Amino acid sequence: MNTTEFEKLLQAIAPPSDEATSAARNLQDQLTKPQGSLGYVETIGIQLCAIAGTCPPPIPEPVTLAVFAGDHGVVASGVTPWPSEVTAQMVANFCAGGAAINVLARHVGATVVVVDVGVATPIPVDSLALKRRNIAKGTRDLAVEPAMSPEQAMSALGVGVEIANEAIAGGARLLVTGDMGIGNTTPSAALIAALTSSSPQLVTGRGTGINDEMLRVKTEIIESSLERLAPGAETLVILAEVGGLEIAALAGFIVAGAAARVPVVIDGVISVAAALVASALNPLIPAYLIAGHRSTEPGASVGLAHLGLTPVLDLSLRLGEGSGGALAVPIVQAAAKILREMATFESAGVTAKDVSP
Amino acid sequence: MNTTEFEKLLQAIAPPSDEATSAARNLQDQLTKPQGSLGYVETIGIQLCAIAGTCPPPIPEPVTLAVFAGDHGVVASGVTPWPSEVTAQMVANFCAGGAAINVLARHVGATVVVVDVGVATPIPVDSLALKRRNIAKGTRDLAVEPAMSPEQAMSALGVGVEIANEAIAGGARLLVTGDMGIGNTTPSAALIAALTSSSPQLVTGRGTGINDEMLRVKTEIIESSLERLAPGAETLVILAEVGGLEIAALAGFIVAGAAARVPVVIDGVISVAAALVASALNPLIPAYLIAGHRSTEPGASVGLAHLGLTPVLDLSLRLGEGSGGALAVPIVQAAAKILREMATFESAGVTAKDVSP
Repeated sequence: MNTTEFEKLLQAIAPPSDEATSAARNLQDQLTKPQGSLGYVETIGIQLCAIAGTCPPPIPEPVTLAVFAGDHGVVASGVTPWPSEVTAQMVANFCAGGAAINVLARHVGATVVVVDVGVATPIPVDSLALKRRNIAKGTRDLAVEPAMSPEQAMSALGVGVEIANEAIAGGARLLVTGDMGIGNTTPSAALIAALTSSSPQLVTGRGTGINDEMLRVKTEIIESSLERLAPGAETLVILAEVGGLEIAALAGFIVAGAAARVPVVIDGVISVAAALVASALNPLIPAYLIAGHRSTEPGASVGLAHLGLTPVLDLSLRLGEGSGGALAVPIVQAAAKILREMATFESAGVTAKDVSP
Repeated sequence: MNTTEFEKLLQAIAPPSDEATSAARNLQDQLTKPQGSLGYVETIGIQLCAIAGTCPPPIPEPVTLAVFAGDHGVVASGVTPWPSEVTAQMVANFCAGGAAINVLARHVGATVVVVDVGVATPIPVDSLALKRRNIAKGTRDLAVEPAMSPEQAMSALGVGVEIANEAIAGGARLLVTGDMGIGNTTPSAALIAALTSSSPQLVTGRGTGINDEMLRVKTEIIESSLERLAPGAETLVILAEVGGLEIAALAGFIVAGAAARVPVVIDGVISVAAALVASALNPLIPAYLIAGHRSTEPGASVGLAHLGLTPVLDLSLRLGEGSGGALAVPIVQAAAKILREMATFESAGVTAKDVSP
């Protein structure tokens, strides 16, 4: 996919349907429950109608959860206690079915697609579940130079688009984002800081568990990397300078989902960074997103607020892989079923209340 | 069930297993994820081990969700805009499968049992799904007299015990609480105030939607009803004075679940009131409870804090019926599967991190 084709895809994203939104609000108020009593579940149901352009909405299934994996040159600068080899090892674990995301995806009936966009070390597995789309053996160290060339960033976006389109062509009607990449909370925090105009101190967290000194180093690296960006730099320039291959792929995956009017459940802080990239490219994007959960990483909350998204779950998760996205899937599907299957006051012969609240 | 038998059941509740708790904590740290990165999902998994006395825990299924229905004399004093007839109409809706709880229970694979403990008006349905255990045609008006006699309260507790025991004998390994009763946020708030020593102003909310004047009346009724209680009144006296038939049944249901070491997912404010009754009778009870969600009713948060429970979901629900309990079921089951199905660092050949956090 080249820049022109990607630009065309971005322009293909339609606004969500106002008509279906109104119809859904009206239907919610006729169902046998006090108005608004299903809270955020009602909101999600209305959003699903807006995305699909129909009320009631289709049940968002089958579900495809894509885990994009990539490594990060910045690991050499000391931002994490985990060696980069763990990325490849965890990819092997995903292919073998033993990781948290495998357990959770099986539990919610989602198909897992594992994509190597930029893993640095050999993946010790030969699995049909693994899509080999390696663009580079990890990014360069964003502490000292741009993480990616513009061409690499564009290629990674294209991988995400390809994976989403393939899933949708195969029948998927709900997409979930996942990631694996040792060190990837660093580029994510950098992207979140840049795209929300927040200070690196505010959005940088402890990732999978780092000490105070490592957090100081990480924050300083993010600060200095952002100083290389010209004011008002284009989104794709920001992505290439301080992003990551799997984050770029996630952004492409999100864009393609929205262009196909397929709702996308986003996971934690890495996915939030990718969603910010996508929505900087087209502000209609958040209408197609459902935030699966609120990660404990501070950048996640900042990013969600910027996107105007309310997380479905708040379970103090900080794993990534798509784990919080997967756990939110049954609730998203329940929201559709409420609109599809509940009786109305009229059909059930239930008396509405005497007076208005 | 008489008072002696119920007392015996209360004494049969065993403490959760320390050994299984330790084993579960240890296992969580060996699984291929950063320690603690699955947050509250890890906590639930450990609790399931403690309850079952084994690690990993059994998957908590099949699931039985019991909806206890009862009416409230206090409706005559003007605490809700809904007529009492709606309780019977909604019971019919439950039996026909058209209510929110039917949709959500089907979605999560739970069996719904509907129990008439105290519905005031005729239930326009003849369904096998309905258990007819009517003790009275609603409670008396707690604004002016005790809601129940001690004998009625004891009978209602017994109905809850019977329903739980029947579900467990039929194979249920996870119980979920549900309720239906026009006006039942009033006795619930009264019980929560009494059992947590909180002011009625703090714990009384708008239920299914009442205006300021009705809220003032409701709060005053709760205040004056509590003035009839002697300081240090026994739990069963409090329950009879200001409770409800379905709330008493829910308390019995919870007690029987705990006695059988079956975890109980509790729903919103009505279930929280019942859980406070049960845990006042035996302080081991909260170890067997998982709070499905945080209702928007203020008393729910006060009660959950008193019970030491963290809600799984916080979706601004205020429907009751067991809706928030049902929506939490997939997450509770996921917590068990994480411990049962994930690979360890050793088995997956994944390198643990270089240094401690």
